[in-house]
Amino acid sequence: MIINIFVYVLMQQAIQAFLLIPKDSDFTIKNIPFGVASKPNGNPFPATIIGDSVINLAKLEELGYFNGPLFSTLGSKVFDSGNLNKFVSLSRPYWKEVRSQIQSLFQCGSQLENNQEALAQIITPVQDIQNHLPITIGEYTDFYSSKNHAFNMGSIIRGPDNAMQPNWYYLPVGYHGRRSSIVIDGTDIRRPWGQVKAPTAEKPSFTKCKRLDYELEIGAVIGGAPNNLGEPIKVNQAEDRVFGFVILNDWSARDVQVWEYVPLGPFGAKNFASTISPWIVSIEALEPFRIQLPEQDPEPFIYLKEKNHTSFDIRLEVLIGTEKSPELEHFTTSNFKYMYWSVNQQIAHHSITGCNIQPGDLFGSGTISGTTKDGRGCLMEYTWNGKEPLVLKSGEQRLFLEDGDVLEMRGYAGEGENRVGFGRCKGKILPALDEAYFQS
Amino acid sequence: MIINIFVYVLMQQAIQAFLLIPKDSDFTIKNIPFGVASKPNGNPFPATIIGDSVINLAKLEELGYFNGPLFSTLGSKVFDSGNLNKFVSLSRPYWKEVRSQIQSLFQCGSQLENNQEALAQIITPVQDIQNHLPITIGEYTDFYSSKNHAFNMGSIIRGPDNAMQPNWYYLPVGYHGRRSSIVIDGTDIRRPWGQVKAPTAEKPSFTKCKRLDYELEIGAVIGGAPNNLGEPIKVNQAEDRVFGFVILNDWSARDVQVWEYVPLGPFGAKNFASTISPWIVSIEALEPFRIQLPEQDPEPFIYLKEKNHTSFDIRLEVLIGTEKSPELEHFTTSNFKYMYWSVNQQIAHHSITGCNIQPGDLFGSGTISGTTKDGRGCLMEYTWNGKEPLVLKSGEQRLFLEDGDVLEMRGYAGEGENRVGFGRCKGKILPALDEAYFQS
Repeated sequence: MIINIFVYVLMQQAIQAFLLIPKDSDFTIKNIPFGVASKPNGNPFPATIIGDSVINLAKLEELGYFNGPLFSTLGSKVFDSGNLNKFVSLSRPYWKEVRSQIQSLFQCGSQLENNQEALAQIITPVQDIQNHLPITIGEYTDFYSSKNHAFNMGSIIRGPDNAMQPNWYYLPVGYHGRRSSIVIDGTDIRRPWGQVKAPTAEKPSFTKCKRLDYELEIGAVIGGAPNNLGEPIKVNQAEDRVFGFVILNDWSARDVQVWEYVPLGPFGAKNFASTISPWIVSIEALEPFRIQLPEQDPEPFIYLKEKNHTSFDIRLEVLIGTEKSPELEHFTTSNFKYMYWSVNQQIAHHSITGCNIQPGDLFGSGTISGTTKDGRGCLMEYTWNGKEPLVLKSGEQRLFLEDGDVLEMRGYAGEGENRVGFGRCKGKILPALDEAYFQS
Repeated sequence: MIINIFVYVLMQQAIQAFLLIPKDSDFTIKNIPFGVASKPNGNPFPATIIGDSVINLAKLEELGYFNGPLFSTLGSKVFDSGNLNKFVSLSRPYWKEVRSQIQSLFQCGSQLENNQEALAQIITPVQDIQNHLPITIGEYTDFYSSKNHAFNMGSIIRGPDNAMQPNWYYLPVGYHGRRSSIVIDGTDIRRPWGQVKAPTAEKPSFTKCKRLDYELEIGAVIGGAPNNLGEPIKVNQAEDRVFGFVILNDWSARDVQVWEYVPLGPFGAKNFASTISPWIVSIEALEPFRIQLPEQDPEPFIYLKEKNHTSFDIRLEVLIGTEKSPELEHFTTSNFKYMYWSVNQQIAHHSITGCNIQPGDLFGSGTISGTTKDGRGCLMEYTWNGKEPLVLKSGEQRLFLEDGDVLEMRGYAGEGENRVGFGRCKGKILPALDEAYFQS
């Protein structure tokens, strides 16, 4: 009920930006996502984007555009470095206030609209900037919280009758991942080498990965003050720790994974690269798209029991281009609403034994799969472990990713002037290193 | 052969410090480990220790005591912050040079010996300082590389005939761990809550951990310039990336672990705390204690094939004190020589799919167990999963750790004036949070 009223109030706001916003832009004035950008040969600066205009937040702050009682308590600048970590370490009142002040500043009729001198300092066309990782990521954890994905993967490996492991309905299964190899949209991905063993082979071999896959995920950027070591975060307070979301592609070497993962989990199969979209979309921007998740059975333990068990209605798409047919072709649609465990439950579970969760951490949702074949969030599911090829318009077929393939993910909620989108999360597969590399 | 000559030369050096070195000190002038310390109400500073004298490296540098052509290439200070990350990010020639210059400075007859004014600024008695984490840890990875440990754990879980998983002899099995909860020697450890399920129980329950354990490990502190993403580190160059070693206690909630770890590995059972000893002992200091490891069968793949497959002869001890009998009682002796996979192989494997390894990362060896019962490196092994109690001199028994228990690890190589030790790695178990915590 509280949520519905909030949505209603937001929908009533008729904010109109004075910046040009192309049709179907992810970056309406209702969005105001946060990222880091640089001009050619320039230093990275915290930024937001409206339409195709990138707004320098360091400059806005320097020129004194952030005001009010909340700001005056800070005592030092928030955006004066090459990442958003200081901002992310604050709390929801600050995050809300900054977004709201930016919306006011760029609304038609604002003081800034006719200040051409200030605008020239603050704004750069998006085609003239490069994005960087928006935060220095502290640590990366990846969950496994979409039931459709877990069921499909389990069915492939153990058959549908034993698809779900016994613990899956009791806790949001997750593992610690690697943050050093998290890269920004547009970064090329080198096909890895690794140990693999076919089920029929007597021994493993050392080879170029033959089953290179992507995973369609949402990443939650953790913010706020850390909990003390030994003091779990309560599930109904966990959302205070969610700054916002990005799209996450957790590239996976399936053949490496199946050989290495017993008994301690995925390692080299996952740690060679993950890609995130450049702009962090805030909970505030997504609030109108919050949706109730189905009741959980069995009922969660007290530390996982939410007053409001919710996710967001975010449409997620996957597109592919190949060397022969470089034009991107859409083949998968999923949605962030297909989550069984919520981000708040992931946070509560991550800290239940006492782990201190820090601002700047990134939590992956796990691959998000819908209910139909074209909603499956990775090729292992889509091709049912390499059995049913993905057939492209050009006639080309894919079981797993090939060299030169470009994989792009997109995500957005709402439409028209209410659209709140994530931009893109894209990567191109480079050929593996030559065998000679290992002989020198 | 090269190693033997090197050992011989080192043994010939009769360095005599002018600082008092107590009998059986871990910190002879042959050691020169690196840490971070602070005086009461003071800022943390990079330090080393000789005997009971803590030496302020920032002050030594500030007073111009580090000299020579290598240093002049640096252009900026190395020790002017509250951690050792800048120093660790350099390379072996710098690490060697700094250690060697410190040894010269504190040798009998040095210029510094009679400079009471400088010494007063540089030296603080160890009882007046507090240690801090020596580096801001980038990421933490834990391996599983002691064969005795893997065999014992496998025998407990699956019986001796199926003890070893098929991949174990082919690759150093490891998983990404959590760095935020790594604490320094002396930090109290709160017993965690978590989900557990007894084999006979129909459903899991949410409870205080009843099988709290330690794990006796060596942590390798990674240094040097990072490899590029997509470019694996070659095994015979991997040691360039090892700055030095600490003792590591990887606290474990065994009952939580057994329920949660399928299929993605240990999570909350491990991420609530790990403790490290305060002083990083360098490879240079340990060089005289380098030992050959047995030949591996099967022969490792090319990327794991070392020219010299070695470890170090470091004696590792575990002691326990209880609330009733607080005096520490020694009950386990193991050794870093009981490794199957070397640190160099762990590094090569960690990066084989392309992962970029960064200075400041910490790699745990995995629990190191000897061949006999009193060499087992954790209580799960020692008590054979809670079946054969550890009986203390007081008559008290332990299957797993109880509230108020103090667990201390120690490690050293050599003896007398050649002793190179790690100091201690100690933690006390605090009672779990009250159940009411989760109901508010």
